[in-house]
Amino acid sequence: MRMYDIISKKRHGGKLSDEEIAFFVRGYTEGTVPDYQAAALMMAVCCRGMDEEECTSLTLHMMHSGDTVDLSGLENTVDKHSTGGVGDLTSLVVTPTLAALGLNVAKMSGRGLGHTGGTIDKLESIPGFNTSLSMEEFISQVKNIGIAVIGQTADLAPADKKMYALRDVTATIDSVPLIASSIMAKKLAAGAESILLDVKYGSGAFMKTREAAEDLAGLMVKLGKKAGRKMGALVTSMEYPLGRKIGNSLEIMEAVDILRDGERSDARLVSSELAAHLYSVATGCGIPESRELVNRTIDSGKTYEKFLQWIKAQGGDPEAVDKGRLPLSPHRFELRSPADGYVCSADTEGLGMASCILGAGRVTKDDVPDLGAGYILHVSPGDRISHGDLIATLYTSDISKTAPACDKILFSLRIGDSRPESLPDLIYRFIS
Amino acid sequence: MRMYDIISKKRHGGKLSDEEIAFFVRGYTEGTVPDYQAAALMMAVCCRGMDEEECTSLTLHMMHSGDTVDLSGLENTVDKHSTGGVGDLTSLVVTPTLAALGLNVAKMSGRGLGHTGGTIDKLESIPGFNTSLSMEEFISQVKNIGIAVIGQTADLAPADKKMYALRDVTATIDSVPLIASSIMAKKLAAGAESILLDVKYGSGAFMKTREAAEDLAGLMVKLGKKAGRKMGALVTSMEYPLGRKIGNSLEIMEAVDILRDGERSDARLVSSELAAHLYSVATGCGIPESRELVNRTIDSGKTYEKFLQWIKAQGGDPEAVDKGRLPLSPHRFELRSPADGYVCSADTEGLGMASCILGAGRVTKDDVPDLGAGYILHVSPGDRISHGDLIATLYTSDISKTAPACDKILFSLRIGDSRPESLPDLIYRFIS
Repeated sequence: MRMYDIISKKRHGGKLSDEEIAFFVRGYTEGTVPDYQAAALMMAVCCRGMDEEECTSLTLHMMHSGDTVDLSGLENTVDKHSTGGVGDLTSLVVTPTLAALGLNVAKMSGRGLGHTGGTIDKLESIPGFNTSLSMEEFISQVKNIGIAVIGQTADLAPADKKMYALRDVTATIDSVPLIASSIMAKKLAAGAESILLDVKYGSGAFMKTREAAEDLAGLMVKLGKKAGRKMGALVTSMEYPLGRKIGNSLEIMEAVDILRDGERSDARLVSSELAAHLYSVATGCGIPESRELVNRTIDSGKTYEKFLQWIKAQGGDPEAVDKGRLPLSPHRFELRSPADGYVCSADTEGLGMASCILGAGRVTKDDVPDLGAGYILHVSPGDRISHGDLIATLYTSDISKTAPACDKILFSLRIGDSRPESLPDLIYRFIS
Repeated sequence: MRMYDIISKKRHGGKLSDEEIAFFVRGYTEGTVPDYQAAALMMAVCCRGMDEEECTSLTLHMMHSGDTVDLSGLENTVDKHSTGGVGDLTSLVVTPTLAALGLNVAKMSGRGLGHTGGTIDKLESIPGFNTSLSMEEFISQVKNIGIAVIGQTADLAPADKKMYALRDVTATIDSVPLIASSIMAKKLAAGAESILLDVKYGSGAFMKTREAAEDLAGLMVKLGKKAGRKMGALVTSMEYPLGRKIGNSLEIMEAVDILRDGERSDARLVSSELAAHLYSVATGCGIPESRELVNRTIDSGKTYEKFLQWIKAQGGDPEAVDKGRLPLSPHRFELRSPADGYVCSADTEGLGMASCILGAGRVTKDDVPDLGAGYILHVSPGDRISHGDLIATLYTSDISKTAPACDKILFSLRIGDSRPESLPDLIYRFIS
């Protein structure tokens, strides 16, 4: 088998066999297939596509290119994955809720990059919280309390890691089959029996339209099922930041607002829907009953109890969380509206970058985020605002970043003369 | 400007600006653009195409990536280029004919690769012939006798050389805009004022159909004109080897058959048409008059005289050529027909590979060809042959190659029960 023939076949619109995809994934991981041949193949896939069968082969071979987590000693293991967004704190609500409902959450999460945040960074803003458990500690904690969330320690899907880095510099990221395989290879390697995908669409999401998000979600659900997992996906809006607190410690605070103080918000709604759908996927219980159970668990304070138990189990300080003693960057600035009008829409990617500018995120993988930086957004789409109204409260350790972040926020919010006729649906549809 | 954006633009079907193409060509030549980004761009071009303007930019920037030959001290300089074929000895007839007609042939030729032969290898089969003149010797010989043909000594279009090597391993060779730019960048850098392209189509050609050859020819003619050259192209058949002698010294011998002995054959016809059209392009003389002039020059022996003068000027032994003392490999084998029937058609690429198997060609660039190897094909399309009739006479220095070469020849000839209804046109059309 020759890599040349594989590239040529795909270039001319042919269908790659399982053996050909295996040859490529193995060769590229081991270094016998050079970057330039992989780049040519990735571009050919972007231009010519891949069908479901090819995509399944790619996913499974990438999944098996490294370690896979063995969760077979645990029953009812669940995982959720978000394609990434701004103010997306849902994992902080969903995971303790499901653990409180008796499921086993054994989750590996990512770090933030670019305009999107990452659960691991958020958890690390809790003093003492350890996201680097050994595999034994990880499994044992799940056995004890039903939940553990760690950074990716095992060498999951190294083929994907290498391919993603290459795609990132060759303009071959935005291809539905490649994105789907990349996400699912890692998720499947992480071992959970039931997986719920939160596929975001809109100005702050990777997929800009509902249709594109739907396609991606549908394909990933199929890939997961072919690998024998119980799968579901919700297509949800990222046309506006989901939570109003954007940053790392700030998002932990918003989770507390929801779990302890019963705050009703978009973030609460999307989180409880995600939890309900994942519960339904994992147990077979109907959606209305699952929704009922989830809301009762959150409202009763059981989720918050589990949240604090989880923090304690991973070395974090539950008191710091409960008493509001989380880090917050020292320079505080109140951004006020320069005009009258209605909040019509937003460039949510820009709003995410504003938090990044304040120090909360990473522009490149090697940046170290300021866990106390970020901002609170005081306005929502459809709000009437007047000149001088408080739009955002910014926190940063680098005062020189305040002005550019304000600029970015104002530039990213679209303030119009009239109230927008409709607001985007928070939850578009469920795919299973 | 970022290479990423250039790749992304082309991937999504956009048109690259002259500045973007310049940035890529310069960056890739200098090594600041890595192979994997170039490979991704080449694949995107293969899938999305390039328009004439982009193609012109690519050609001119590749042309200017290295040396260009200054022929300004010579008048009426002419060059011809063949896209490559089997038994394609036309350069050996065309160039001395035009020199005999008073034009200046200052030509850089290539070596054979794969199933196609190269003029430089053929000339080097003449004892003493030197294809490595210095640029001064080259120009001065053209001034003296109107003709010099050398291997590519100057660093012509290094960007193309690097890109071609990359395309060769990433399945991105067969793209009309990339082929056209690659050929024309080198031809334009070689400096002639008038250029005739012999674009082959058929089973032994790079372009398999007349239409594809026509497209390529049309685009190259336009590219040359945009660079201010006088251009023409003939689309000719490579459905069957052009000459009956296939090899290096063997093709010199066939040139002698035509030039000295007045042999009338397909090779003679295509050669004189190429010469006539190039004469017409260069001088503005009509095609019928040019054809008349060319045939008279060949038939009168003036071309042969020029041919011998040229050989002598480059250190070759005209006596060896005239007296038939060219190298011929020692093992001779007569291949006879195993069946009765008609020669219907041929896989001409296979017939070219048979010569390569006998030692006459190069499978990889580093092979050293056996200049006396090859074979004489005794049958032509439409011929009736009987069991036992002589099909080919093979010459090789490695007797073990005889059997595989015979196999290859028999496998490549299509012998059928009835005479083919029509034979492909030798000359399909002229484009100017």
